[in-house]
Amino acid sequence: MMAESAAGSKRIIHGGDLDAARAAFPGAPEPWVDLSTGINPWPYPLPPIPAEAWTRLPGRAAETALREAAAACYGAPSPDCVAAAGGSQALIQILPRLRPPGTVVVLGPTYAEHAAGWAKAGHRVTEVMTLESCAADVVVVVNPNNPDGRIVPPEALLALAERQAARGGWLVVDEAFAEVAPECSVASEAGRAGLVILRSFGKFFGLAGVRLGFLLGGPALVREALAAVGPWAVSGPALAVATAALSDSAWIAATRRRLAEAAARFDTRLVDAGLHVTGGTSLFRLIDAPQAAGLYNALGRAGVLTRRFDYRQDWLRLGLPVDEAAEDRVKTACGMFRNR
Amino acid sequence: MMAESAAGSKRIIHGGDLDAARAAFPGAPEPWVDLSTGINPWPYPLPPIPAEAWTRLPGRAAETALREAAAACYGAPSPDCVAAAGGSQALIQILPRLRPPGTVVVLGPTYAEHAAGWAKAGHRVTEVMTLESCAADVVVVVNPNNPDGRIVPPEALLALAERQAARGGWLVVDEAFAEVAPECSVASEAGRAGLVILRSFGKFFGLAGVRLGFLLGGPALVREALAAVGPWAVSGPALAVATAALSDSAWIAATRRRLAEAAARFDTRLVDAGLHVTGGTSLFRLIDAPQAAGLYNALGRAGVLTRRFDYRQDWLRLGLPVDEAAEDRVKTACGMFRNR
Repeated sequence: MMAESAAGSKRIIHGGDLDAARAAFPGAPEPWVDLSTGINPWPYPLPPIPAEAWTRLPGRAAETALREAAAACYGAPSPDCVAAAGGSQALIQILPRLRPPGTVVVLGPTYAEHAAGWAKAGHRVTEVMTLESCAADVVVVVNPNNPDGRIVPPEALLALAERQAARGGWLVVDEAFAEVAPECSVASEAGRAGLVILRSFGKFFGLAGVRLGFLLGGPALVREALAAVGPWAVSGPALAVATAALSDSAWIAATRRRLAEAAARFDTRLVDAGLHVTGGTSLFRLIDAPQAAGLYNALGRAGVLTRRFDYRQDWLRLGLPVDEAAEDRVKTACGMFRNR
Repeated sequence: MMAESAAGSKRIIHGGDLDAARAAFPGAPEPWVDLSTGINPWPYPLPPIPAEAWTRLPGRAAETALREAAAACYGAPSPDCVAAAGGSQALIQILPRLRPPGTVVVLGPTYAEHAAGWAKAGHRVTEVMTLESCAADVVVVVNPNNPDGRIVPPEALLALAERQAARGGWLVVDEAFAEVAPECSVASEAGRAGLVILRSFGKFFGLAGVRLGFLLGGPALVREALAAVGPWAVSGPALAVATAALSDSAWIAATRRRLAEAAARFDTRLVDAGLHVTGGTSLFRLIDAPQAAGLYNALGRAGVLTRRFDYRQDWLRLGLPVDEAAEDRVKTACGMFRNR
C-alpha cells in the first residue's frame, strides 16, 4: 500500500502501506486499522457503472460532463478552467514541466511530492516556513496544509497570486483537503493570472483507488496540462463515479458535517488518552508528542497504522477511525502506552 | 468519444467519437455500430472488484501482482522488466522525456501519437516507409502496425535493437495489437539493451475504459518510467480486473481463436460486398478502395462509424462487428453504396 517515489535524491514514503506494517508488526491483530492516510472512511456509495464505461475509450461527452460537475462542485467559473487527470499526483508530476526551470518555494513542511517533483524537473527548490518575503518564480502552498492543517487565508493567497502573476510566476495551491474547509478555497478565482489550483477527488469522497484529480486554472494552462496528460487520462469508471459524486450536493454537505463531528469526537478520545492534538483537518488529526515514535510502535503492535514523519519525529498523523471498535483500539493502545 | 491531442502542430483525430458521428449523420439509425476502433467487442467478463480497490490507495502488493501477471502473460523475463501506467498512451507521452532531444524515426504511416509525442518533447522526427538504412537515436515501430497490420519479423527487430543499443539509442516497439499475433512479439527479449516495448491492456481484453498499459524494458528504464509516471498511476479497479484477465490463459487462448475466426468471417462479408481487404489484424481490418470517402459516408448514414485517414484517403479501417445484426448493417450499407 506504500508507494515510493524515486523523485529527488531520497525515496518518499507515503501512508497506506499495510503490507509493510504487517511485516514490521507480525503479531498485530487483524484486520488492521489503517489511519495512515487522510481518506474519508465513509466512501461515496458507488453508483451503477455502465458497461460501456469499462469497454469503450472514455468519451468526450463524459469528459465534458465531469469537467462541468467539477467546476460546479468546486465553484470554478467555467469547465474551461478545469483539467482532469488520473489523480492530483499525476498533475504534481506534470506541472513542473510546464515551465522552464526556475526558482520554487514550497511552504513546508508539507506533502513531499511537490518539492521532489519540481526539483526533478530542474527547478531550484527551497522549503520555507512562512510566506513572508518569499520570492520565487513558483510558490507552492498546500491549503489546508498536510499534515498540520495550517490554513493560509484566501485573501493572502489571492494577493500572493497577483504578485506572482506580475513577475510571470505561479502560485500553486494544492487544495487536496479543501472539501472539508471550503471557506479557505480559492477555486472560485480559478482563471486568475498566476493562480494554479489542484484538487483531489479520492480523499473527501473516500475513493482513493479511483485515481482522479483536477487542475483549475486559466484556459490556456488547462489546455497545456491536458496536452501533457494526453488523451483518455481518466478511466471510464472514474468518469462515471466522479460525475455522480461531485454533483451530489446533499451527500457532500452531509459528509462535511459527518467528518467534522467525527473529527471532534476523535479529538475527545485522543485527549482522554492523554494526547495533544496540535492540528489537522476533518480528514486527519495531528498529534504533537515527544514520545511519538514510541506511540507509533505501540499503535502498530495493536494493529493500528498511523503516519509518522522523518522531519518531525514528535508528530503523528491519524486519519479518522471508521467505527467505535477502531476508536477503541486506538484508545486502548494509547492508554497502555501511557501507563507502560 | 473522440480525443484530440494538442501535441504537435495539428490535432490528432482518434476513433470512437460517436458524439461527432451523431452530429455528422443526424438521420442515422440508433444504436450506432462503432467500428472505428480496434477494440475487442467481446470484453473480458469483469471479475468481482473488492470494495477496497475503490476506496484505498492502490497498494504495492496489488501493483506487484499486476506486474507479475503481465510479465507472465507477455512472456517477459521478469516483473522487474515491467512498468504499468494508466494506458499505453500515458507511456507514449512520457517516453520522449526520458531521453535528451535527438533524432527519431517512426515507421509509418502509423498511430499518430508517437511522432507527435517525440516532436513535442523537442526531438527531430522523421516518418519513414521502410526500416532499411534508417539511422536515428530512436526508432519507433508499431508491430503489428496500425492500421495496415504490417509485421516486422522479430529477428529483424532484435537485430535493429542491437544496432540501436550500439549507438546508445532505442528501438521502441509498440505491441498494442500483439496479443493477436503473439508470434511477432519481442516481449520475451524485454531487458535487452536498447529495446523498449509498449503493451496495451484495453484492446485485446475489450476494456479500453480501464486505462492500463505497460512498458517492458530493462530494470533501469522501468524504474525511470515508474518515477516519471509517479505513484498510484494505475487505479485500484484496473489492478483488480487486469491481474485476473492477464492470468486467464484459457480466456486468452479462446479469444485469440474467436477473434481470428471473426476477422476471417468479416473479411468474407467485406469481399462479398465488393470490397478489397488489404491488411489489418484480428482486431481490425483495413479496406483499400478509391471510393473510401464515399463509403465512409454511406456507412455513416447507416449508423456505422469507421475510421478514415487524412494521409490515405483510399483507406478505411473497420473493427469487428459484435454480432450478425452489426455485420448485416455493414454489408447492406456497402451493397447500397456499390449499387448507387
